Amino acid sequence: MTRNEITEQIVLARLTKGLTWQELADAVGRPVVWTTSALLGQHPIPADIGKVFVDMLGLDESAIAVLAAPPMRGGLPTAVPTDPTIYRFYEALQVYGGALKELIHENFGDGIMSAINFSVDLQKKSHPSGDRVVVTFDGKFLPYDWVSADS
Amino acid sequence: MTRNEITEQIVLARLTKGLTWQELADAVGRPVVWTTSALLGQHPIPADIGKVFVDMLGLDESAIAVLAAPPMRGGLPTAVPTDPTIYRFYEALQVYGGALKELIHENFGDGIMSAINFSVDLQKKSHPSGDRVVVTFDGKFLPYDWVSADS
Amino acid sequence: MTRNEITEQIVLARLTKGLTWQELADAVGRPVVWTTSALLGQHPIPADIGKVFVDMLGLDESAIAVLAAPPMRGGLPTAVPTDPTIYRFYEALQVYGGALKELIHENFGDGIMSAINFSVDLQKKSHPSGDRVVVTFDGKFLPYDWVSADS
Amino acid sequence: MTRNEITEQIVLARLTKGLTWQELADAVGRPVVWTTSALLGQHPIPADIGKVFVDMLGLDESAIAVLAAPPMRGGLPTAVPTDPTIYRFYEALQVYGGALKELIHENFGDGIMSAINFSVDLQKKSHPSGDRVVVTFDGKFLPYDWVSADS
Amino acid sequence: MTRNEITEQIVLARLTKGLTWQELADAVGRPVVWTTSALLGQHPIPADIGKVFVDMLGLDESAIAVLAAPPMRGGLPTAVPTDPTIYRFYEALQVYGGALKELIHENFGDGIMSAINFSVDLQKKSHPSGDRVVVTFDGKFLPYDWVSADS
Amino acid sequence: MTRNEITEQIVLARLTKGLTWQELADAVGRPVVWTTSALLGQHPIPADIGKVFVDMLGLDESAIAVLAAPPMRGGLPTAVPTDPTIYRFYEALQVYGGALKELIHENFGDGIMSAINFSVDLQKKSHPSGDRVVVTFDGKFLPYDWVSADS
Amino acid sequence: MTRNEITEQIVLARLTKGLTWQELADAVGRPVVWTTSALLGQHPIPADIGKVFVDMLGLDESAIAVLAAPPMRGGLPTAVPTDPTIYRFYEALQVYGGALKELIHENFGDGIMSAINFSVDLQKKSHPSGDRVVVTFDGKFLPYDWVSADS
Amino acid sequence: MTRNEITEQIVLARLTKGLTWQELADAVGRPVVWTTSALLGQHPIPADIGKVFVDMLGLDESAIAVLAAPPMRGGLPTAVPTDPTIYRFYEALQVYGGALKELIHENFGDGIMSAINFSVDLQKKSHPSGDRVVVTFDGKFLPYDWVSADS
Amino acid sequence: MTRNEITEQIVLARLTKGLTWQELADAVGRPVVWTTSALLGQHPIPADIGKVFVDMLGLDESAIAVLAAPPMRGGLPTAVPTDPTIYRFYEALQVYGGALKELIHENFGDGIMSAINFSVDLQKKSHPSGDRVVVTFDGKFLPYDWVSADS
Amino acid sequence: MTRNEITEQIVLARLTKGLTWQELADAVGRPVVWTTSALLGQHPIPADIGKVFVDMLGLDESAIAVLAAPPMRGGLPTAVPTDPTIYRFYEALQVYGGALKELIHENFGDGIMSAINFSVDLQKKSHPSGDRVVVTFDGKFLPYDWVSADS
Repeated sequence: MTRNEITEQIVLARLTKGLTWQELADAVGRPVVWTTSALLGQHPIPADIGKVFVDMLGLDESAIAVLAAPPMRGGLPTAVPTDPTIYRFYEALQVYGGALKELIHENFGDGIMSAINFSVDLQKKSHPSGDRVVVTFDGKFLPYDWVSADS
Repeated sequence: MTRNEITEQIVLARLTKGLTWQELADAVGRPVVWTTSALLGQHPIPADIGKVFVDMLGLDESAIAVLAAPPMRGGLPTAVPTDPTIYRFYEALQVYGGALKELIHENFGDGIMSAINFSVDLQKKSHPSGDRVVVTFDGKFLPYDWVSADS
Repeated sequence: MTRNEITEQIVLARLTKGLTWQELADAVGRPVVWTTSALLGQHPIPADIGKVFVDMLGLDESAIAVLAAPPMRGGLPTAVPTDPTIYRFYEALQVYGGALKELIHENFGDGIMSAINFSVDLQKKSHPSGDRVVVTFDGKFLPYDWVSADS
Repeated sequence: MTRNEITEQIVLARLTKGLTWQELADAVGRPVVWTTSALLGQHPIPADIGKVFVDMLGLDESAIAVLAAPPMRGGLPTAVPTDPTIYRFYEALQVYGGALKELIHENFGDGIMSAINFSVDLQKKSHPSGDRVVVTFDGKFLPYDWVSADS
Repeated sequence: MTRNEITEQIVLARLTKGLTWQELADAVGRPVVWTTSALLGQHPIPADIGKVFVDMLGLDESAIAVLAAPPMRGGLPTAVPTDPTIYRFYEALQVYGGALKELIHENFGDGIMSAINFSVDLQKKSHPSGDRVVVTFDGKFLPYDWVSADS
Repeated sequence: MTRNEITEQIVLARLTKGLTWQELADAVGRPVVWTTSALLGQHPIPADIGKVFVDMLGLDESAIAVLAAPPMRGGLPTAVPTDPTIYRFYEALQVYGGALKELIHENFGDGIMSAINFSVDLQKKSHPSGDRVVVTFDGKFLPYDWVSADS
Repeated sequence: MTRNEITEQIVLARLTKGLTWQELADAVGRPVVWTTSALLGQHPIPADIGKVFVDMLGLDESAIAVLAAPPMRGGLPTAVPTDPTIYRFYEALQVYGGALKELIHENFGDGIMSAINFSVDLQKKSHPSGDRVVVTFDGKFLPYDWVSADS
Repeated sequence: MTRNEITEQIVLARLTKGLTWQELADAVGRPVVWTTSALLGQHPIPADIGKVFVDMLGLDESAIAVLAAPPMRGGLPTAVPTDPTIYRFYEALQVYGGALKELIHENFGDGIMSAINFSVDLQKKSHPSGDRVVVTFDGKFLPYDWVSADS
Repeated sequence: MTRNEITEQIVLARLTKGLTWQELADAVGRPVVWTTSALLGQHPIPADIGKVFVDMLGLDESAIAVLAAPPMRGGLPTAVPTDPTIYRFYEALQVYGGALKELIHENFGDGIMSAINFSVDLQKKSHPSGDRVVVTFDGKFLPYDWVSADS
Repeated sequence: MTRNEITEQIVLARLTKGLTWQELADAVGRPVVWTTSALLGQHPIPADIGKVFVDMLGLDESAIAVLAAPPMRGGLPTAVPTDPTIYRFYEALQVYGGALKELIHENFGDGIMSAINFSVDLQKKSHPSGDRVVVTFDGKFLPYDWVSADS
């Protein structure tokens, strides 16, 4: 049973059992975006946490070891996503990606926002013109730095 | 002089004149992410604002009308960005895109985060382990809604 | 049984049972384009409606929960469709897409036709030179609007 | 001066002279979607109409003959459009393309909606929840028909 | 059993039973190019004809309903075909496609050769320098015509 | 002046001078499909013929030597053509390519229709239901034959 | 059992039985490059030869008819090969393809090296600096020749 | 003047001056395939040889230094070549690439034919059924060998 | 059982049995990068070593012969890797690939670093600012050398 | 003068003036891989260093400001490099990328080798079987770490 097959089982078991992602996250005390992403195959899941999920979702115990290994990441089935809910993030990158690059450089210098030392948060905020989805990408600034182990 | 040629002139003039994106934004009283994105060719620039930019950057007056028209948007030269600073956002989408979709549905129902009724904010926040780039995507939730004009 | 597998079963069961899409739509009192698209895997199907379809098509009851979840949308097997009936819509986009963009901007300002607050209608209309397929895309105009939850 | 170069001149001249697409269409008594698409390089423009446009836009007379020839059609710079206003039509095709195919077959039999014997209309319709963009694709149904000249 | 699976069964059954495409076409009195293309999954097969094929090839009766539905067309596994026999037609398009376009316009005006009101014929003709494959594409000319149902 | 630049000049000069492809073909006594394809950059043009074209179209004499060299062939700007008039041939290949392969094998054995020992003809034929474009691909059958120079 | 499935069985059976490609070729008296390519699914295998292979490799008798049909050719899983041993041939084409084209034209005139009336040979030759792989592509020159069956 | 621009000048100058590739090769005493490939931008050309070419072709002296630098190699404008003369080599790779890999391994062991310690030869050989193009790829066998500088 | 299926089994068995790649390498006395790459399907594994792995991992004995054959190499599921850990190497190539090419030429002359006579080493080195991943690519320099077997 | 145009000038000026990359690096006291990559457009060049390069290479003073800005990185003209010297690094990634990922995880845990806190070194090392190119990628290990600015 590969990680992909386990992910498919998780997706179906969650729906059948009527569990929310939030309930799964609460059961293990981890942030809900991390939990959801991990259960969709994008992060290793420590064995003690994996044990809880396996029990809640009715998976085979043998899944625990596979869930605990760092997976081959990258969850989009095509390079440009076709699902509208996901596509809007890609679209934002097409329209604002260049500006984000310029302003990271202007405010921090030459470097990047880490996607590893990183967290994502999703909030529902109310607004007179309608509820808003507020997604925060929060990554450590990493300056381009020419370092070598031996110098 | 097409919009692309004007964008190229803007990029060079800003560097030569030593203007920051923030200074350009402040000169017209608009958010800096919007301003930068617009000057990089992703938004129309109202003529009165365009006039200010044309003066600050030493462009030809004829650019004002072109800047004021809605541009052909989409600023990435390749479908998958190669620049590391921009790529990290694409990578975040590969790793967290599926989770964001699931959680938008769990918290709001079936629908999307608008990328049109939308704003982007970039903040520099300090943290014991180093400064952080905090980027907020803030879009109105749009529920899938089967509406027609004539019903 | 994933959503894709259920879709495949629906497609075969409909043919075997000799049901029309219109009959399926009428059975649940929903528009036929919505119904067809949903049964082809592009929309979540509320459980009460899903129940009707599962009965009519002879699917397993366990499909109801899966049908009720927002699916991963995007139904074209290749980025450019190869089926001639679908391709003509893509071709229309190649020939008229630029004009539609210009005229949306000229008539409404900078913004888009929503594909979420949206409906599609297909009519058969007679004409002296032969019957015509009349497809209407009807979406709410969304102006580009720089809004944030906290301002 | 190739057709592409003329198109670029038209785009700039229209903005500089402050002409709307509707004014250009009215000047020659043709539908505005057709006119806009033709001026964007997607249709041949009969010489008498071309003459009017050349005068209004201040183009060189030599453009008339080039405008009158059937152009190499296809106006999207990438197979999947990046501009959000155009992309929504592509997205609609991803979500509803399969359903449109099924319903054309159910209502008309095996065949297609012609994109040649075809017109496109764009209307602004009001609605309590906001103005709507209503785009109509109207094409002759062409049944698959195995005909040969010599039989 | 999807249409693709049925096609795969047809391909194998024909070889095992030693039937030619011509024999299959003769058995139902249809042109051989049409018959072959239909059996390869590119056309719906009316139920009475489908019944004959199902009997000759030893397929399950349930295939008849599936064969009778308009299929998702498009038979090339890659956008550019790799099989040399098929590739030569693509190559002819690379070399002569532009000329065919120009001459259709010169002889008929602006428009296309229909691929729907269309037939294909393949003949073996002898020639002093060796037998020749003569393939005729025969499609109705469709002039670009701006027609709408309601005008 | 590269071959591509000469082709561009030919395209414009032909329109400006109001010459048909047929007139150009007649002037040199060559088939019109060959002539058009050659003038669009797909065949070398012998110097004596090139001389005639250069005079008729008002090109520089230096073009003759360039026209006489075998060009880098392949005239489609994208792998899948976007122009509708050309696309229909590609579509025919998607729908009938597999059948043509099978029938070439059934009638001739394992091999191909040559696209080199080859001609293309385009005819306008009348038909009660409207004029037809009849395009004939006529290529020598080449059987797969394992030959080596030294055996 | 499709041709692809048979190929997969051949690949495994050969390894398990410890047969070399040369032994398989010798058993049927055919060139080893032809034999290997055919067994990898790129050529039809006459039934008498197929019988020998089926026996040697322990395949099912039903494979003989499938092996005897001209296959859908094209054996690279990606357009640009990733396997280093195969890639070097692609690389040679990138570096020397243009030169080969020019020299075929200089030595033979406008035309091609046939890949159908064609053989490939692979030799191991010794050399002071190390053994060499010598691969010979040997194809009949086919001049571009405008021939039609009816003239 | 970049290497690409120099290549373009070489191509045109050779045609205008009526020089063959063989004459250019003979003038510097190098193999004709190497010479042609180098002049098409695929190899550095030592300054003394470059001097001869610059004189013969009437290029600017400043080209010598550019020609002498190792170029960015890779001469195909698209990943899959469209020119028929070049395509046949790609086709041979599709049909025989897998077999060549297997036979290199069978005859030499695990490794590759070098495309660096390598030469290409093109011969015209006569044959009763017509002249043949015989192209030889001759590369040193390189066995996979796990070597490190420090061990 | 194909090589890909065996690789999948290896990946799962290693996790289930809790073996490290280092333990597997140590068991056979081979470098750990080579061992890992080979077990992931990128190198043939000599039968005596394969026997050890089959025993340790509990695979079927029949896998030994398949593991011993040179595999179809190339382990990335997409041309541009999506997994962040692998992507960083691709990114380094985007940023430093041109410089590495220039410096190989400056220091060694025209040629390449072999990826066949080659080894890879991965070290963990400590550094005041944090542990470092140090990866060494160590390949024999191969000068472009025009050699043929018969000269 | 865009950064790309400046890069092109640098490449040509270096060759014309006969400067080595090492000499350019030495002139500013920076590592040679960094220097070469920066001059090829992949890093910003501080103004004081840019001044030295502008003088050595005879560029316009206005280039200094452009060189000092963080560039749009990504130097490969195609996603898969065609140049053999660069391709070998891509090939190494295809063959060893999966293993490097596994071993980074085994030795460091879940995370990546940074390509930002990073250096590259290229050495020429002698070896009995021939000189070797030794390239070291040296990046800080970054563990996946779920950190947010506000917690």
